[in-house]
Amino acid sequence: MLAEIITIGREILTGRTLDTNSNWLAKELTDLGIKVKRIVVVDDVVEEISKEILNAIKYGVRLIITTGGLGPTFDDKTMEGVSLATGRKLVLNRTALKMVEEKYKKLYEEGAVDTPELTEERKKMAYLPDGAQPIPNPVGAAPGMMITVSGCTIVSLPGVPKEMKEMFSSYVKPVIRQIVEREGKRRILLEKIIPSGSKDESLVAAVVKKVREKYPEVYIKSLPERFGKEVNIQVRFTAEGDSKEEVEALINAAIEEFKRLMKEDGDLTNGKEYTN
Amino acid sequence: MLAEIITIGREILTGRTLDTNSNWLAKELTDLGIKVKRIVVVDDVVEEISKEILNAIKYGVRLIITTGGLGPTFDDKTMEGVSLATGRKLVLNRTALKMVEEKYKKLYEEGAVDTPELTEERKKMAYLPDGAQPIPNPVGAAPGMMITVSGCTIVSLPGVPKEMKEMFSSYVKPVIRQIVEREGKRRILLEKIIPSGSKDESLVAAVVKKVREKYPEVYIKSLPERFGKEVNIQVRFTAEGDSKEEVEALINAAIEEFKRLMKEDGDLTNGKEYTN
Repeated sequence: MLAEIITIGREILTGRTLDTNSNWLAKELTDLGIKVKRIVVVDDVVEEISKEILNAIKYGVRLIITTGGLGPTFDDKTMEGVSLATGRKLVLNRTALKMVEEKYKKLYEEGAVDTPELTEERKKMAYLPDGAQPIPNPVGAAPGMMITVSGCTIVSLPGVPKEMKEMFSSYVKPVIRQIVEREGKRRILLEKIIPSGSKDESLVAAVVKKVREKYPEVYIKSLPERFGKEVNIQVRFTAEGDSKEEVEALINAAIEEFKRLMKEDGDLTNGKEYTN
Repeated sequence: MLAEIITIGREILTGRTLDTNSNWLAKELTDLGIKVKRIVVVDDVVEEISKEILNAIKYGVRLIITTGGLGPTFDDKTMEGVSLATGRKLVLNRTALKMVEEKYKKLYEEGAVDTPELTEERKKMAYLPDGAQPIPNPVGAAPGMMITVSGCTIVSLPGVPKEMKEMFSSYVKPVIRQIVEREGKRRILLEKIIPSGSKDESLVAAVVKKVREKYPEVYIKSLPERFGKEVNIQVRFTAEGDSKEEVEALINAAIEEFKRLMKEDGDLTNGKEYTN
């Protein structure tokens, strides 16, 4: 299953804020057996948001997660962007309104805001694309939303990392897991990292290339780390398949081939073994 | 002038690596008076890289900076992607080859690699799109490149942050500054941040909205920070123009209007002033 992450907010594009949400989400989705095809950061502009969503759908993405742009201010444009892309009008969602209402009541009782009143700006956060399901926000005020249109599920979460993570873990992850399981496309993804035995990435690359030709299903990547003049090259073998056994056997075969070729090409290592 | 940053590498899409390069570059470009329109992370796939470059050019972007995918391994696809997008064949660039040659000679003398020989993998790093200018890499082995096609300058830098930063600062920044100055489109961008005097973002948003209506050229954003139950809301005013005086006057006028309205709408703050 292909997914995309869309980060919405000018503060990322000016470099004011480092986007750590995408990285966190990418890890979560990868762990769920989903392939993240692209991560995009766009401005708080309705048409830009919509364009990226439509592009993703066009390229066969089945899950889009947006972060940011859900708050009460005029430049929080995510819901409008989703609305434009999906053709679903923004409507006042009763459940979302209740969430917002209760949140401000609580904040008022705690003395955090001056009035529990549902101002126009607060109400704005309860307008969701028609047919969307609101996602509760246990940390902040703005609800998230989830909607499935033409086979693609769009999930919108706030940009505040604490809110985003809590909402993803509690409400989104279980649903995604269901979708993945229902589709029966949950693929086993395994990887192993081994020392290459050489210090020269370009030479290791030559052997990796040969192994790739024999095992095209295995993704092999050399990982050089430089410590002053010392270079430590490890090699990562990644593969996916339907069962753990099958994938493990495939990776092991590629590793054996790699070791064999490294030994054979004596001139590559000059007999020197690299140790950490 | 519009720019885009394209980060190339599967390790970002799986969440293994946090992309800090884009953030650093976004800051640098913003400081140069350039507007970053989009940041995209794509896989090590020639067609994906090419597609994003072509999309950017289509939307009027004048500067594209890519990071990652320049090394000697089979999955370093950036040059191929640029080649496909620009229609410029990959050719062995003599200057780039000399850079790679000298680098490995030096590494060999330092005992960091086993041979100074120009293997196929090392030579690969000297193949640039026809007409491209190589960018020296004082830190690592892979040269970068710069090419201008149909009015859009494409700059490719390595993904290793230390290499990328050094190359951008020493070789790319001066060229970009020249382009910006030549175009005479260097705009002054200023911002001021003031305390809102209130603790409630949705209420501040109402006043911000009114100020926006009067000063549409000023970008105004409330910045809430939550410390336990305390909320500190600051307001950022950003504007751009041809002279510092003009932009400053505009921002100051918007700030005065904001303060006036916050005072006038006594019910917004209930007379309570917020202090840090």
